[in-house]
Amino acid sequence: MPIVNIQVTREGTTPDRDSVTAEEKAALIKGVSELLLKVLNKPLESTFVVIDEVDTDNWGWGGLPALEYRRKVAAQKAAAES
Amino acid sequence: MPIVNIQVTREGTTPDRDSVTAEEKAALIKGVSELLLKVLNKPLESTFVVIDEVDTDNWGWGGLPALEYRRKVAAQKAAAES
Amino acid sequence: MPIVNIQVTREGTTPDRDSVTAEEKAALIKGVSELLLKVLNKPLESTFVVIDEVDTDNWGWGGLPALEYRRKVAAQKAAAES
Amino acid sequence: MPIVNIQVTREGTTPDRDSVTAEEKAALIKGVSELLLKVLNKPLESTFVVIDEVDTDNWGWGGLPALEYRRKVAAQKAAAES
Amino acid sequence: MPIVNIQVTREGTTPDRDSVTAEEKAALIKGVSELLLKVLNKPLESTFVVIDEVDTDNWGWGGLPALEYRRKVAAQKAAAES
Amino acid sequence: MPIVNIQVTREGTTPDRDSVTAEEKAALIKGVSELLLKVLNKPLESTFVVIDEVDTDNWGWGGLPALEYRRKVAAQKAAAES
Repeated sequence: MPIVNIQVTREGTTPDRDSVTAEEKAALIKGVSELLLKVLNKPLESTFVVIDEVDTDNWGWGGLPALEYRRKVAAQKAAAES
Repeated sequence: MPIVNIQVTREGTTPDRDSVTAEEKAALIKGVSELLLKVLNKPLESTFVVIDEVDTDNWGWGGLPALEYRRKVAAQKAAAES
Repeated sequence: MPIVNIQVTREGTTPDRDSVTAEEKAALIKGVSELLLKVLNKPLESTFVVIDEVDTDNWGWGGLPALEYRRKVAAQKAAAES
Repeated sequence: MPIVNIQVTREGTTPDRDSVTAEEKAALIKGVSELLLKVLNKPLESTFVVIDEVDTDNWGWGGLPALEYRRKVAAQKAAAES
Repeated sequence: MPIVNIQVTREGTTPDRDSVTAEEKAALIKGVSELLLKVLNKPLESTFVVIDEVDTDNWGWGGLPALEYRRKVAAQKAAAES
Repeated sequence: MPIVNIQVTREGTTPDRDSVTAEEKAALIKGVSELLLKVLNKPLESTFVVIDEVDTDNWGWGGLPALEYRRKVAAQKAAAES
């Protein structure tokens, strides 16, 4: 009877995509359900998985909107390596 | 002070609809709030209800995306009855 | 395939209890599941209900911990009626 | 490592807007993250904030959809003051 | 930046245990984080996993408390096989 | 009508404490509610805040249980500085 809620930012894994594809969602559902079967013996038919896609403006990290935080971290990294 | 989060797939209850109607949402809100009043004496004004509609691609059951799982279960049932 | 999360404060409905009883939880589970069957034709076997009991210190309303807010509202009401 | 989920109705703070602006979301992210740093010493880089905007039809209070509940409360207030 | 909430009933995977072990929790955390790395290229350090253990009385399925529903399904299965 | 769910690890802010204190919870409730009043004009009486304390074994980051991840990061930092 597990319920797995997966929250991810609404982004694609390649530049030409702007969100998670149906195939990627199916892979997440399959992977999580099989993990719960393997680790906790939970039958697949008793596992719900819900994927919640969140706009990047609606996701905060480091006190900043997600994309702004990423730029900040990338700039810090570049400065440290220069 | 209850909070009730209801997650349902974004589907209609009749073929011509593709999501829950405003009337159905109002019926869920009324029903859940009155249930909490009846069972736990929670005043209606202290109960929040939030309905979250989830795309069927984003909902997994049985290790599969929802619609695929339904087709699988329907096929199994048909096979068992033939 | 609905999932219903019910968050309530960890309190009893009578002075001699300090939390929701098993019978009350069963009544909530039954009532919510049947409501989803009635309003959205969701079969009982496809509905999960999870009840989350929250300590009153961990619940805030009106900018205050729950019990403090209740005392404030009760005092305001008494003052208004005197 | 805090996670903060903020659920709000999808509404603007001024008549010409129909949802929360990017600036307001950034202010919520900043404010919550700094609050957790101040109160619980949680570093900003260890705090996730997710803002979930909910359609007003999907939000219930007082056993009614949100906007209907607001109209009811406003009418009661007006009647009490007349 | 994924957040994964895993809700499971508070039960052991063997008769002598009454809840998920630390090792099993670590396996779930590892498995889910690596799945998100593999499917969506999410770095491990940007993934939060929270495991929520729920008392069986607090979990409903089929309109019944979890353990009662299991007994009902087991009885139906036994009857169908006799 | 905002709902704010704050998930934090069950830890104290000083060595002699093993969880968040009532005062710290009250400060979080006050701070978040006032933030929503300031940024989105949400009246305090329409804001619910729920604080969810999670055992450190039940929280994963970087593919590891929280405390193990912290030790790993601390060791990496020490190695980088030596």
